[in-house]
Amino acid sequence: MHIKKQRLLTAGPTPLLPQALRAMMGSDIYHRTEDFRALYREVLSGLREVFGTANEVLCLVASGTGGLEAAVSNFFRAGDEVIVCSAGKFGERWVDLARAFGLSPIVLEAPYGEVVSPERVGDALKQHPDARGVFIQASETSTGAEFDVRAIAGLVRATPAILVVDAITGLGTMPLDIDGWGLDVVVGGSQKAFMIPPGLAFVSVSEKAWQHAAAANLPRLYFDLTRERKSAAAGESTWTASTSLILALAEALRYIRAMGMDKLVANAQSLAAATRTAAKALDLELFAPACPASAVTAIRAPKGMDSSAIVRDFREQFGSIIANGQGAMKGKIFRIAHLGYFDFSDLFAVIAQLEVILASRGVSVELGAGVAAIQRAVLNARVASVTK
Amino acid sequence: MHIKKQRLLTAGPTPLLPQALRAMMGSDIYHRTEDFRALYREVLSGLREVFGTANEVLCLVASGTGGLEAAVSNFFRAGDEVIVCSAGKFGERWVDLARAFGLSPIVLEAPYGEVVSPERVGDALKQHPDARGVFIQASETSTGAEFDVRAIAGLVRATPAILVVDAITGLGTMPLDIDGWGLDVVVGGSQKAFMIPPGLAFVSVSEKAWQHAAAANLPRLYFDLTRERKSAAAGESTWTASTSLILALAEALRYIRAMGMDKLVANAQSLAAATRTAAKALDLELFAPACPASAVTAIRAPKGMDSSAIVRDFREQFGSIIANGQGAMKGKIFRIAHLGYFDFSDLFAVIAQLEVILASRGVSVELGAGVAAIQRAVLNARVASVTK
Repeated sequence: MHIKKQRLLTAGPTPLLPQALRAMMGSDIYHRTEDFRALYREVLSGLREVFGTANEVLCLVASGTGGLEAAVSNFFRAGDEVIVCSAGKFGERWVDLARAFGLSPIVLEAPYGEVVSPERVGDALKQHPDARGVFIQASETSTGAEFDVRAIAGLVRATPAILVVDAITGLGTMPLDIDGWGLDVVVGGSQKAFMIPPGLAFVSVSEKAWQHAAAANLPRLYFDLTRERKSAAAGESTWTASTSLILALAEALRYIRAMGMDKLVANAQSLAAATRTAAKALDLELFAPACPASAVTAIRAPKGMDSSAIVRDFREQFGSIIANGQGAMKGKIFRIAHLGYFDFSDLFAVIAQLEVILASRGVSVELGAGVAAIQRAVLNARVASVTK
Repeated sequence: MHIKKQRLLTAGPTPLLPQALRAMMGSDIYHRTEDFRALYREVLSGLREVFGTANEVLCLVASGTGGLEAAVSNFFRAGDEVIVCSAGKFGERWVDLARAFGLSPIVLEAPYGEVVSPERVGDALKQHPDARGVFIQASETSTGAEFDVRAIAGLVRATPAILVVDAITGLGTMPLDIDGWGLDVVVGGSQKAFMIPPGLAFVSVSEKAWQHAAAANLPRLYFDLTRERKSAAAGESTWTASTSLILALAEALRYIRAMGMDKLVANAQSLAAATRTAAKALDLELFAPACPASAVTAIRAPKGMDSSAIVRDFREQFGSIIANGQGAMKGKIFRIAHLGYFDFSDLFAVIAQLEVILASRGVSVELGAGVAAIQRAVLNARVASVTK
């Protein structure tokens, strides 16, 4: 039994929307009924609205990676050349998926903490004019770095390739104009800015991508999006729906629509900007200073300190669950999340905790200095909203 | 629909223990079964353990005031002289109850923000040697003031009077040695340090009080504690049990026993002490500096400012629900709670919010200064716990 108050503060699962959690108690329902179809239709139309697209948005019973797999297995033929951008753990997952399904990936790597530039993607497209797809992260969660999705989309648009975007932490944290920029396949996940538990993946599919799908020959059944599209048209999921999560999602989508997707994005952006100023006030080094994401801020552990110790102190001293670095970055960075149901009060507490942790480990920090940086951001935003 | 994340931060209802809330979903049970009796017995024995008494502790389906009424209606005869200490809204409630039931109260008043001293109680007991009862608050929630319960108990013990203690916010926030000090009737409520929703009142009854009860003649039925005592012996509630709250209470009591009641008290005391140092760091004036409670800290609004505006800013700017003054104190003070399921991270956030609110209203405050005071308290406590 945890005696300390527990706070889930990671970039996914994220803090849960209370009314969405409560709605899950209504799960004693059958999914092949008109009542459920009405709910499912509401959810699909809500997803389309918050994705901000006229494209179909499909819902899969899977973690985000299931959505990524669907984005690979539905649109290509064995041996297809695809350009895969990889600048972190999730870029590597694209590479793994492409290889697992027998594609021929051209991998554009960038060091952790950086992103693959649009120029490099443009060059690769010229060198590989037959490439059938380009894979990117909108926001690379493992490093807190944001890709220039718009610029890359502009380059892909004129080619036969489709742009496949892992937007699992990108959706709701950064502007993504799916139709305006031409993002062909966009994958989201329930446990991110959607503020509900893991278990649902979302995939939007453009007309260009559906044309790819018509010629695709990779093995798939559970994640067959063409079949899922037909079911969706009938207000159903192909396989058994995750009723509890659909109930939660319906509440979350009502909340996001009441707030406005742009405001949800602006909230993450404000919190991210404030986190960076707090890090600066505490003389901490950002891990991805050139391309910082708004979903999560990765911060380097102070010299000589293992970030695992910081993560452990958060948990043991304060009951706060924050994320370590992943893979090779474990021990080197820690990550402060601010997507979905996070607010400035969460940040006040997490930065105050961080200051106490650093001070208790002998790092020279001015107590309250990081918090004050965030308070100034709040006050400035308030002035800005009064004067505009 | 609230767009801002809502935080309940008042002195009652208090923040809820998550596992207790979850347990309420098991309410599809019948209360006249062996299963429920086993649960009810566990709860009654758990209450006795956390009250820290060998006395019977009974559980009523009522708000705290129902428990106060039971403490009046069960132990006295019409016209009995009783000494009632009143230094706030809840002291006044004792007076109201005594009058409503036809007792003859001798009212010892103290200004809001102070308490009635043991000396005054001693004098009154000398002047009224036939007084049958003395009524006090352990902690006066409306003003954040703590009575010297132990000293008063020492004076009452040698008289025919019983000491009746409203410990609704006192339990779990201050030491109360019911048996050692001789507290005859002690009233608690579910929505305070017990960390569950309102709807249950708890009453412990000493042998001396049961002797009073045997001679009592005030009208009562629903709150008849003698009848409730018999039911409790059979593992039952006299009337229909509040099944959802009993389920929640069972979880809360398991939590409190795992933590230790002394630790729960120490937590409130540490948070209260830190709140006072934060107020000092922000040049704010405490409302009850001579006898501050550990349940809630009342702070005067800065000169020329209405505390209602501060309370409103907490709600509108941050979604935080904190309490205004009650009755005559409305607009003059605001109250920061720290009983039950509160921790230092709650305090980091609430003080950071307060600093932003004051700054945005033109009060000269050093941003982060109050938070730093709390951080120092955390760091000192950590050193203390390492070195002891």
